[in-house]
This record gives sequence, C-alpha cells and structure tokens, in this order.
Amino acid sequence: MNISQENLLDSLQFMACDASYADAETVIFGAPFDGTTSFRPGTRFASQAMRRDFAAIETYSPKLDLDLEDYAFHDAGDLLLPYGNPASVLAKIHLYIKRLLEDGKRPAMLGGEHLVTLGAIEPMVARFPDLHIIHFDAHTDLREAYLDESLSHATVIRKCWDLLGDGRIHSFGIRSGLKEEFIWAREHLDFHPFGLEGIEALRDTLHDKPVYITLDLDVLDPSVMPGTGTPEPGGVSYNELHEALISLGGLKIVGFDINELSPPYDPSGISTAVACKLLRELLLLSADRS
Amino acid sequence: MNISQENLLDSLQFMACDASYADAETVIFGAPFDGTTSFRPGTRFASQAMRRDFAAIETYSPKLDLDLEDYAFHDAGDLLLPYGNPASVLAKIHLYIKRLLEDGKRPAMLGGEHLVTLGAIEPMVARFPDLHIIHFDAHTDLREAYLDESLSHATVIRKCWDLLGDGRIHSFGIRSGLKEEFIWAREHLDFHPFGLEGIEALRDTLHDKPVYITLDLDVLDPSVMPGTGTPEPGGVSYNELHEALISLGGLKIVGFDINELSPPYDPSGISTAVACKLLRELLLLSADRS
Amino acid sequence: MNISQENLLDSLQFMACDASYADAETVIFGAPFDGTTSFRPGTRFASQAMRRDFAAIETYSPKLDLDLEDYAFHDAGDLLLPYGNPASVLAKIHLYIKRLLEDGKRPAMLGGEHLVTLGAIEPMVARFPDLHIIHFDAHTDLREAYLDESLSHATVIRKCWDLLGDGRIHSFGIRSGLKEEFIWAREHLDFHPFGLEGIEALRDTLHDKPVYITLDLDVLDPSVMPGTGTPEPGGVSYNELHEALISLGGLKIVGFDINELSPPYDPSGISTAVACKLLRELLLLSADRS
Amino acid sequence: MNISQENLLDSLQFMACDASYADAETVIFGAPFDGTTSFRPGTRFASQAMRRDFAAIETYSPKLDLDLEDYAFHDAGDLLLPYGNPASVLAKIHLYIKRLLEDGKRPAMLGGEHLVTLGAIEPMVARFPDLHIIHFDAHTDLREAYLDESLSHATVIRKCWDLLGDGRIHSFGIRSGLKEEFIWAREHLDFHPFGLEGIEALRDTLHDKPVYITLDLDVLDPSVMPGTGTPEPGGVSYNELHEALISLGGLKIVGFDINELSPPYDPSGISTAVACKLLRELLLLSADRS
Amino acid sequence: MNISQENLLDSLQFMACDASYADAETVIFGAPFDGTTSFRPGTRFASQAMRRDFAAIETYSPKLDLDLEDYAFHDAGDLLLPYGNPASVLAKIHLYIKRLLEDGKRPAMLGGEHLVTLGAIEPMVARFPDLHIIHFDAHTDLREAYLDESLSHATVIRKCWDLLGDGRIHSFGIRSGLKEEFIWAREHLDFHPFGLEGIEALRDTLHDKPVYITLDLDVLDPSVMPGTGTPEPGGVSYNELHEALISLGGLKIVGFDINELSPPYDPSGISTAVACKLLRELLLLSADRS
Amino acid sequence: MNISQENLLDSLQFMACDASYADAETVIFGAPFDGTTSFRPGTRFASQAMRRDFAAIETYSPKLDLDLEDYAFHDAGDLLLPYGNPASVLAKIHLYIKRLLEDGKRPAMLGGEHLVTLGAIEPMVARFPDLHIIHFDAHTDLREAYLDESLSHATVIRKCWDLLGDGRIHSFGIRSGLKEEFIWAREHLDFHPFGLEGIEALRDTLHDKPVYITLDLDVLDPSVMPGTGTPEPGGVSYNELHEALISLGGLKIVGFDINELSPPYDPSGISTAVACKLLRELLLLSADRS
Repeated sequence: MNISQENLLDSLQFMACDASYADAETVIFGAPFDGTTSFRPGTRFASQAMRRDFAAIETYSPKLDLDLEDYAFHDAGDLLLPYGNPASVLAKIHLYIKRLLEDGKRPAMLGGEHLVTLGAIEPMVARFPDLHIIHFDAHTDLREAYLDESLSHATVIRKCWDLLGDGRIHSFGIRSGLKEEFIWAREHLDFHPFGLEGIEALRDTLHDKPVYITLDLDVLDPSVMPGTGTPEPGGVSYNELHEALISLGGLKIVGFDINELSPPYDPSGISTAVACKLLRELLLLSADRS
Repeated sequence: MNISQENLLDSLQFMACDASYADAETVIFGAPFDGTTSFRPGTRFASQAMRRDFAAIETYSPKLDLDLEDYAFHDAGDLLLPYGNPASVLAKIHLYIKRLLEDGKRPAMLGGEHLVTLGAIEPMVARFPDLHIIHFDAHTDLREAYLDESLSHATVIRKCWDLLGDGRIHSFGIRSGLKEEFIWAREHLDFHPFGLEGIEALRDTLHDKPVYITLDLDVLDPSVMPGTGTPEPGGVSYNELHEALISLGGLKIVGFDINELSPPYDPSGISTAVACKLLRELLLLSADRS
Repeated sequence: MNISQENLLDSLQFMACDASYADAETVIFGAPFDGTTSFRPGTRFASQAMRRDFAAIETYSPKLDLDLEDYAFHDAGDLLLPYGNPASVLAKIHLYIKRLLEDGKRPAMLGGEHLVTLGAIEPMVARFPDLHIIHFDAHTDLREAYLDESLSHATVIRKCWDLLGDGRIHSFGIRSGLKEEFIWAREHLDFHPFGLEGIEALRDTLHDKPVYITLDLDVLDPSVMPGTGTPEPGGVSYNELHEALISLGGLKIVGFDINELSPPYDPSGISTAVACKLLRELLLLSADRS
Repeated sequence: MNISQENLLDSLQFMACDASYADAETVIFGAPFDGTTSFRPGTRFASQAMRRDFAAIETYSPKLDLDLEDYAFHDAGDLLLPYGNPASVLAKIHLYIKRLLEDGKRPAMLGGEHLVTLGAIEPMVARFPDLHIIHFDAHTDLREAYLDESLSHATVIRKCWDLLGDGRIHSFGIRSGLKEEFIWAREHLDFHPFGLEGIEALRDTLHDKPVYITLDLDVLDPSVMPGTGTPEPGGVSYNELHEALISLGGLKIVGFDINELSPPYDPSGISTAVACKLLRELLLLSADRS
Repeated sequence: MNISQENLLDSLQFMACDASYADAETVIFGAPFDGTTSFRPGTRFASQAMRRDFAAIETYSPKLDLDLEDYAFHDAGDLLLPYGNPASVLAKIHLYIKRLLEDGKRPAMLGGEHLVTLGAIEPMVARFPDLHIIHFDAHTDLREAYLDESLSHATVIRKCWDLLGDGRIHSFGIRSGLKEEFIWAREHLDFHPFGLEGIEALRDTLHDKPVYITLDLDVLDPSVMPGTGTPEPGGVSYNELHEALISLGGLKIVGFDINELSPPYDPSGISTAVACKLLRELLLLSADRS
Repeated sequence: MNISQENLLDSLQFMACDASYADAETVIFGAPFDGTTSFRPGTRFASQAMRRDFAAIETYSPKLDLDLEDYAFHDAGDLLLPYGNPASVLAKIHLYIKRLLEDGKRPAMLGGEHLVTLGAIEPMVARFPDLHIIHFDAHTDLREAYLDESLSHATVIRKCWDLLGDGRIHSFGIRSGLKEEFIWAREHLDFHPFGLEGIEALRDTLHDKPVYITLDLDVLDPSVMPGTGTPEPGGVSYNELHEALISLGGLKIVGFDINELSPPYDPSGISTAVACKLLRELLLLSADRS
C-alpha cells in the first residue's frame, strides 16, 4: 500500500494541476534560465517560487467565473537546463515543446528570462504557420545583438520576428529601448508603446488565428512587480493588465509563457503572487475556449 | 523624584496616545495572534511595529483637518495571548473588550490575523444589539471551516454573520474566495466585490446605527501593502481607501480593528506606514463624532 | 508516451531521494507546523526550502565516504497539517509514522517546530519499547506548560519523558531555560549542558538499543544557524556537531527528525544549507548501519 | 599606453556622463549626507546606488525623444562630507556649487536628505537673484526648528523661503505637516497640496525665469518609492510625476536636485530605478532648453 | 479601575525590568544616536529592537546561576536626542546620567554609536574620580579628529583618555586603526589587541576600583554580530567574550554601556539576540556584587 | 580649472588605489561574470560592492604592520563582459591580463565566479612557465564537464591542471565534490582537504617559484561568508585563513584573484567586509615582497 496516495500529503506540483500528462490538455513547465540577463539574474528561481506560492491563491477566478478544478492541467516540473550555453538551452526548450505539440498539448512555459520565448516560438510556428504573438513588455527586445551576442533577452522579439515577419507581433506596454528600436518597431510590428490601448481590437482581428501570448511581467509597473530583472518605472497597473487579458477571451490561445519574475529581488513575495494569479487567469482563458 | 516624568525621555506608547486609561475615550491595544494563518505568519508583530513607526507620521491630518493632540487616547499595550489555542485567544479578547465597553471606552484593536475580529464582535453585539459591520477585505473569509477548523482567519466573517444575521455586514473590496462563498455572500451580505463602489451610501443607511469597522489591510493592492499574510493582486489604492473612510465621517463608530499587517514581509516598512496613517484617520474619524 | 519520464526534467522531490515508497528503507517527509512558536514563526517553510536547496550539495559525503546514490530513500512530500490545533497536528503525525513503522520504514521527519517530535515519539515507543532519544538543543523544552498550554515547543521534551521515563533521554548543548528546568534535567535526563562533551560514550552505552535522534538546529551557534525561531547565542560550531554525529556511527538509528529551521529569517540561505548537509549525513549514518 | 582607455573596461561614472568637466554643461555630483534624518537614515547611499543602477536604463527617452548621448554631462563623483556637522556640510555644498556656477555649469545634485538643498539655494540665489524653486515633496519641511535644531530636513524649505521670500516657491504634492505649516504655506508659497494640479500653468508664469527644481522623491506614493526615509502614503504615481516634469519643458532650468532616496530600505531596487529614470529625464529636460 | 494593571497585558518595557525608578538599583535606558556614524547608520534602532527581542531570552542565566527576577531593574525608555548635533546629544546624556548618579542608580546605557560613551564618562568620572574603563572594541577609536570633527565614534576613546589619563583604560580585541593609533595605544592604554588575552588579571588589579564597562559589540566577529555599523572580520567568538565577562565577576561595576548594535543590517536578528543576552549577563554581574 | 582635482571629492576607485596605471605595480580589476553559476547567481556584483565598502576598512594592516598608502596600486575598474558566452569572457580576461603582464603589472582580479580564474591562468603560465597555484576552496571544481559544459565553475581547477600538470596545484579546504574527484585530486594535486593544514610548508617548497593565489571565498565557513553562490558548511574561520595567508609571506606572488563573493545573498555586508580585508592583505603581501 502506498501511503502517498492517501490524503495525508500535500502535492509537490502546482495546486490543482495534478492531472496526468495523458489527461491534460495544457502542460505547465518551468524553463529556469537567466544566463544572458545583463543586470540582475534570478529568474531561474521563478517556477519553483510560483509552485510554492500558488497554494495561496484560490482555484476560482471570480472575474472569469471559472475554476481550475473544472479543467485538467499537468505540471511537468522544470526543464533541466545548462547555464552558460544559450543555444543549448533553446534547443532543449524547442525539443520539449515540439513533443508537447506532437502529443496535442498546449504549452504553458514559466521563464526564466525572456530569451526562453525564442525556444518556444520555433516549434510553435512550425506547428501553426499563421501564428500571431501578443507581446507584453516594458522593453523593445529588438536589438540584433547585445554585447556582441545575438541570443539575448534583449534580442528575443527581433529573433521571433525573423520567424514570423511583419504585422504578426502585437506589442503592448513598451517604454524603453534604443531610438532605432522604436523606429524599427513602428515599421514592422503592431506596436502600442507605453500602455495597453488598442488591445480590445485584437479579439476581432485575431479571430480564429492561433495566438501565442508572451507575457514579460515587467510590463507591469515596478510597484506591482518589484521582483524582476530590469524594473522600468511607468508601467501598467495589475487591474489594467488583468482587464486586457480578459479582453482576449475567446481567442484561440495555443500556448503562452510568463517570464522575467525574479523572486530574489522581492522579499515580500507580491511579485510571485501577481505571477501566480496571472497564470491562473491565462490557464483558464486558454482552456475555456478549447 | 522620578526622572522619567521629565521631558528627557521618549514614551514607549503610541505617540500622542498617552492619556491615562481613565481620561481616554478610545483605548488602543494590540492582539498579536497569527496562530491560524495558513500561508505566511507574522501579523503577531504588527502592533509593536506600528508603535515604533507611528512616530514618523504627524499627529495632524490635513485631509480631516483634525489633530490627535486634541483628543485623549490611551495605548494599553498588547494582550498576552497564547499560541496554538484560538479559542483561548478569542476568550481573552472577548473579556478585555467587554471590560472596555463596561468602562465606556471605544476599542481600537490592532491585529493580528483577521480571526481576532471574532473576539471583538461577540461583546460588541452584546453591548450594541443593532451593530453593523463595515468590512474591508480582499478575501471572503466566509468558509464554515478551513482544514477542518472552524476558528480560522478564513471563517471569521461567517462566524460574525452567525452573530448578526443578514444585511448587517457591509463588505467591500472582496476579490478572492470559493465560488460558493461568492454566491453565499450575495445572498446574505451587503456585498460589494472588487472595489469600494457604493460605500458613500452608508452614511445615510447607517445613520445613527452603531458601526464597527473591521479593516483587513489586504483590501489594498499588494503594491501598497506588501507586508501582509496573503497578498492578493488587484486591490484598491491608498487614496481610494482613504476617501472611502472619509466618506464614513459622521457615522457612530463604536469600535474598529486594523488587521493582517505582517511587518516581516516588508523590509521597506511602507506597509506599517500605511497602517499607521489609517490608524490615525480612524482614531480621528471615530473621536470627532463623539 | 509520458515525456516526464525522460531525462529532460528535474525532479520535484529531494535530489537522489526518488526511490519508490515500496523500495525505500527510509522515508523523508515534512511536518510544516509552527503553530505554538512563541517568538518568530516560519519553520513551516523548512521542508520546502530544504527540498529546493538540497540540489546544491553533493550526494557524496567525503567525511563518511558514503553516497546517497548507493541507498534507496523516498521523499513522500509534506504532511497536510491544520494550523491552530496542535493536538490534531500531533495525531496526524502519529498516524503517519505508525503506518511507516508498520511498513518497515525508517521515518526521517523535517519540522516544523520542535513540538512535532512528540507526534513521532508516541508511535516510536510503541514500536520500540526500549527506545532512547538523543536530543540536541539550545533550550531545555522541559516546562510542564507554557502560557497555560501543555502542547508547546517549550514542553516537548518533558512530554517525551512522560513516555520514556528517567535516563532514556540524552540531552546535549542545552544553554537556556528556567532554573527549575536545569535542576529537573539533572535529575531525570542524561544531561550535558552547554556543549557536546560526553557524546562519544553513547556508542558503547546505547549499543544495540534503538535510537531516535531529535536535532533542534538551534543547538548550533546562531552565527551558523541564523534562520531559526529562537536564536540562542553561545552554541556549538558546525564541525563540532558534525563530529558528534559521526561519533554515533554504528548505533541503530530507527528514526530521526531535524527541526526549527526557519528560512524566512535567513536571506543568505546558509541555515538551509546546514540543515541539508546534516540531513545527508543523518540519512547516510542511519542507512549505513542497516 | 593606458589600457583603461581602451574599450575593455566599464566606466566607474554614471553611464553616458563621462564628458570632461571642461566640456560639460551640466555637472552631476552626489551629496551623501543624512545627518539630520530623524526616522530612518540611509540617503547617504543614494548616489552610489544610482551610479551602479543607471546602467540598467537606456540613454534614450522615448517620451522626450531625446538621448543622453547627444549631450555632454560630467559626473564629478561624490562630495566628501563630514557627519555630525550640518553647518559644515552646507558650507561645502555651497562652495562647490559656487564654483560650478562660476565655471558656467548647471549643477545636478543627488542627495542625501533634503537639507542639502539649502546648501545649493544660497549660491543659486546669489547667481540668479530672480530664482524660482519648483518643489515636489510629501512633507511641508517648513518648521523653524526641529528638536531644537534649525538646520534639518524638516526646516529646509522654510530656510529657502528666508532667501527668496513670498511667491517664489511652488510646492506640489505636500500631504503631511503641522497644522501651522499648512496655514503658513498657504500664505507664503504657491502651494498645491496632495497632488500636482496646477503645474502646467508654470510653463507660462515662469517663462524666462531661472528655475531650480528640488525633487524630494517621497512626493511619490510609497508603493512607487519604498526606499525613502519617511514614507508617506497617498502620493502621486510615477506617470503623474513624469507628466508633470514633461509639462515643465521649455523652462530655463538652471539647476536641480533629487533627494531622499534611501536604498537600504528597498531591497528590490525599484526606488533607485525610479530615481535614475527621473534623473535622465531632468538631465534631458534641462539640457534641451540650453 | 485600570485594566492595564491586570495580567492580561504585556509590558512595553524590557521584560523583568519593570521595577519602579525608586526601587531600582540599576536603570536601563537607550541613547538612540548614530549621527557621526561614517559608514552605515542604524544604531539608533538598537534599544527598541532589544526591548522587543529581550522577551525571547530567559531571565535565568545558567552560567551565572542568577536570575533577573531576583533583582530590581528599571527600564526608563529612550532619551529624546536631536540628530545633527553631537555636542547637544552628549550634554543630554551627561545630564541624565548625572541625575541617575545623584539618585544612587547604576546606569546601563544602550547605544547608539560608540560616541555616546563620552556623554557617560564625564559624569562617571566626576562621581568616581578613580574610575577605570574596560573597553571591548574592534577599532582603536583613538583619532583626535575624524573628517575634521573632534566628536566622533572614531575619537571617543581618545576623548575618554583626556578625562582619565594613562593606564586607566583597558582595551581588548582591537584589530583596526591607523598605525599611529596602535603606537599611541601601546604607550597610553593597557592595550590588548586582537583578542581578550590578559583580561582575567583585571579581577586582581582592579579589585575595589570603580569600573565602567564599555562594550562595542563589534569586538565580536561579524559572523556573530553582523548587525553593526562597521563590521571588522577577525573578532572573538560569543563564548570567548562571555567567558571574559564572567572573569570580571566580583569587580565593582558602577555602570556600563552596550553599543554599535545596528538592527537594520541583520534581518536574522541574531545580533540583537547577542546584545540581549550580554545585557542580561552584565545586569546580573553588576547587580550581584552590589 | 578642474574642480575634481581638489580634495572636495571622493574617489570612485578603490580607496588608496588611485595610483596611475603607469606608476602602479599591481593593477586591480573586476571580472563581473557569473554566467555558469548553477545554484545562485550574483557574483557579478562583487567588485562594485567591494569598491563601495573598501572605504570602511583601514589602509593599515596591524597584523602585517604594512599600509596600502606606502605602495602604488591602480584600480582599473571592471571588464566589460558579455553574458551567456563563457568562451568570449575567458578570451577577454586572457587578453587583458596578457597586456598587464606585458606592461610588467601584477594582476589582482576580483571575480565573478571561479571560472574567471581560467582566463587568468592561461596568460600567467605563458609568462611564468613554472607557475604554481595555491588554491583555497570548499569545492573540488575538478569535473571534466558539468551539465555537458566543459567551461564551468565546476571544472575550472581541472582546466587549470590541463595547463600545469601534476603537483603544481596546492589545494586547501576542499570539503565537497564527487567521490571520483576526491580520488583524482589525491593523485594529481597537492591536496589538503577539510582544512588548511600543511600550508606553512609552502613557504619552503615554493621558495623563488612564481605563485598565483586563487581564493574562492567559500573556503570560509558560511557563517563568515554567507554571501556566496554555493555555501558549504564546515569551512575554516576568518582567523585561520588570515594566518594561512600570512604564512605565505615572502613568496613571490605574481598574481591573485578573489572570487565567489555574492553580495545579494548577504544583506548584512559582512561577506563583502571579509573580501575587502583579504584583498588588503593580499595586496600588501604581494607588494611587500616585490
């Protein structure tokens, strides 16, 4: 008799995300990599902090009137990633997501720094050739290289554009970058700097398109999200972002990531709480449409 | 000659709250209990942190144009409470508040976790049978039991309702709970989820009624109040809460508590500063009417 | 195909403790309870912090020349314990350890506050009537009641004595308590205050006896173990404690616990590192004899 | 050959502020003094923290469409200031700014506590007799003495008024002080308590006047600026302050200071990020007009 | 009836130090001044942190076999001291201690920075012309001036020597200073650098002399006392200092101070625990002789 | 006139290390890289933290009776290093040290993680073919690859051995590693695990040999050095390490590095203080021989 199967014991997985891999439609996993972070590392600890603190939020979303308990999510744990070799990290993420897609799963990836998104977009585009990306961020991330390195948190969206081309990336909240990046962004992206204005239009324009959401949490004001690698003052409030996500209800969300949570820089834990609540909402929003 | 009575020395009590017990109309005391806190304990340190940092705010409220120096408050210190026995804790709070009421004092209790409110409401209702509660909170606190325990921070408002019945609890800011709790709340409480809308109407509807205010500080957004046991993103701003309290001016406030400040989770001390400023405003609002 | 079974993913369990329950001789589990802690709570977070940081130490012990990889340990996760009801907590620990013993497993319990030891000793004595306890601690823990409560971290060794009687508890490192407790200890315990002198004699005197080790980490000096509920200056060094444990090699260790690690009070994480390394050594020492 | 001049090495100065003293129009320097701080010291560490974290923001301001790289700023380092002697500190600041003005430089001073502003205003008024001060703050700072000391962070604006007289100080955001200070302020200052309303009118009324901006960062809400000596809840948001500063574009800013950043009270570093971004904007706003 | 006098309430004073001023032989008070601290301020918070955490140690000292409960101590609270004016601070300390001595009390002063000792020594020497000082410290503190200021934590022992002359100051543990200070110290003091060797001889040489102990806590190694203004590696252990103090038993201790505890720099609180335990031992050692 | 040259201003460089490059015999520089750190990153912040806190220690070493002021040191600042590309990082360190050696300078490198040492040893061996390394560490660092990467903090000493061969690396204090590493170390290194025993013999055996010291600060016990990437309990004390370094006096130290200080994990700053004091001693020990 295996005592672990009785109800004496807590799960080590995300609360309410203990469906088997086979049963789950969405698979959550961590990508604990912060190897190109140029200012303050620490996002490698994000998924384990979220797994711990997720138990402090409820499974029910009163705004969405949906409950995690009514769906099947699987928490696969964290990828084993090497440090100091971004190309290898991206390859491992690529491989894992490719398998998830082959198995018909929706990936929900928890960064890590923003570069991990590139590892996801490659297999996502291969699977969904007409993929659109909805991108929340404080920073442009549009450099071609940063300190001579082309694989960097500061180049990730430019690299995604290499895969998708013009008009397929919808960026919101950007408020920091080089002048050249802002000029480039206005030419090649659906670019909404400083805030979230215009997002509600996506419900129509992206109707029936496969959508990937990449949520760099530093789009939020640092007062709301102090635990992040490069805090950039002047961001949006939690409720503004929450409403923006709700406005995407009904879209066909085929995958998403939440990145740039850096728990060591927030002893109060409020940043992890924000990340957890947004994870719940994104899990519900993407599952509800299915 | 007792040197302590000369002006060389600081008071160990709340600044400007050094009236004698006999002279004071309002008595402030701490209830340092966090024994049922399920996520992050620490509210036991709230009253001592507030006593220390209260000296950093002014006694004058420019918004109210009132000054603590013009009233008589007594700081009685903290109750001596056992850990690990919630029933005994509630009995001690009950006993102390009962005596305060017998002596004609208005209690101003500083939690501790939210459960301490139950110890106050019992003698308050005995003394003021038509008592109304104005309840600020992020969480419903309406479970009948939590982890099989009926005395819990997660059940406290439900236990208060057992004493008061329908329509006598006015809840604001709630944004987290079970689906069943939200449904129950809409049936039995004057329930205003998510924000503070509708509070200004209370000035009329509760005119001449005895009112007890229970302020769970997590009604504020975690950016404003990071130092709390269970931060719940999406709360109100300081100014929104401040204006809401001012709108209650003129009501007959017969007691109040401020709870769920957890100083260990906020090394910046801004949460304690918020609690102190709200304490000043509540002391003035309740005393001004007298 | 279940991708989780491939080597892409990290384990959520203690590193190198992923044997199945059936295969394991020793079962590790957390008892995250700090409900009677009178000064600074936080030990409820110990087992999850240890699970996270255990990956930073090696599986090989150069002092013992033994390796965790050569034995079979099972990490069962954490017990689900209510807050605010110590009697119920002890009952759940009792029940779980009873089942472990019935299944022929050696329990390795991670507190939590020291009271959790009482929940273990009850079924241990039932199973091993001639049980001896080796007790490391800074505090006597010999009160009959504390703040009127008989179940408390401050009474736990006295309650254990109630079960074992004179001469069966071997206490080391004690340096804080009431005068009455010191007098009582000298009469009823094998009492070695202030340091670890005399421990090497136990290898002979306890030869072939079943031994339970309860390690309150505050026996260490606070410089070594800052993250604990009640730091008591003047303790032993890490190497002194390490040598003392090694001197117990060859004893028949039928169970042990490590308690009073409080991670929130140590942002450097060195306390968790100490607890993890001592856990490795105790796992190896107890398994090697088997 | 001096290797330091090759591009292998980082600058120790503020990023993009490495023009020579001779070439620069604006000279940045730190005034690390917090000797009269009555609540929580720590502002002495502000300039060194800003110098470190300034590298994490971009040199380009998308809101202003201006770039630090297009102007010449010199970072002179920090003044060497004694502790325990405010008069001597003010004399050293006075002397240094006098020389800057003689050399035709615009001073950009980084406090330190707010008292350092008085050391600046003396030589500024001597050089610009029709100087106006735009003052952002949470506190009135209008006492004549504090704890019997006339040189204090709590008296600094009153001392500046002694030098300028009525109507030349424009105060915004004040929400804390003695009742007498509020009354006095309304008589002698251009006084805008609680918020930033009315600031856009200054662009006309101060047209062609020499303007000195003193920015006490506690004008911001503590959620935005937790790392400050005396956090005062109820302040303005980052975007509100940012817009207010932009509305001053075109004024003749002859000097400015940023003060009351206290990095030790903000382990997340978001307060330093706010100070750095505001420094960038003020450097650009004042240089652009030149 | 004053409810505060019943046993429901905690004392706001140091635990077990609630004798009346009239009854007490020793009077404890705080001198919360850190105005000349040149590196990291924060010692102003020492006495309030000690008052809070003193409750976590026992009143009984097993090493001394003495108990605070058997003596009468009075906690007078903290002196009200201005910041930014060291001369005025010293005058207030001088005045207060002078009165204590006139009333026949033994002063037990809790700094603050080390400069506060000078305010004590002036009236102590006036009252006890043959006073000797036993001085524990990491730093020489023998400069004649520091940054041009003669009143400084770095000059305090030199200023004491001005009052006492050669051979009356017995310094232990010093390991940092200017070369000139080390040379000077060897000529004018009873100087024992690096450790505590030689202290046991004082029991004979100072027999019947009035002794004042000034304990700069940075004499301890920073691992033991991280929360101090200027940590200096290479200090003594807690047990070494403890034994040294015990070796002074029987001396006529007419006053003492404990200084340079800086709680903000130690989130673990172990430094405050060390200070509290040493306070208990010094209270008992000085009282026992009386 | 350049005001910066007057004595009003603090230096931004290491205190007392402001000789020109041309004049200096030793050049200090930072190598802020932590890109392969597998547990807790943060050593990238070490050199800037040391530059800030070095001002809190004296320039005079009483144990060595030497003073920094009597020698010429140049602080060159920090190398600009990319993240995410260890090979490029090592190449830049290699290039810089090669130039230093060509200019006849002694390099004093401040890591960063331990991998940076490899970038130094390559040019050092080229310049000094009979170079010996004295290696202080808690960890073996002798893997051939770690997580499939050959350039890693966990492989660095093995890579150095590739350059030097048997018997030229003298390792002290090692207490953690794989069993295979311990076996290998005993065969190929002058290996002194667990402590510093045997170090005094080096003064003879390495007489006249060029010696490079690589000091991984985690050789110290975590109580002394909490701020490090991978704390390993059971290390040496500060005084033990200090005495060991002094025993090397007279050796021909041609370069050294100090690595693995991680300031974000030590809010008390004692780890940085330890690193600064050891830097002072190593600067003096190496310069004194010259």
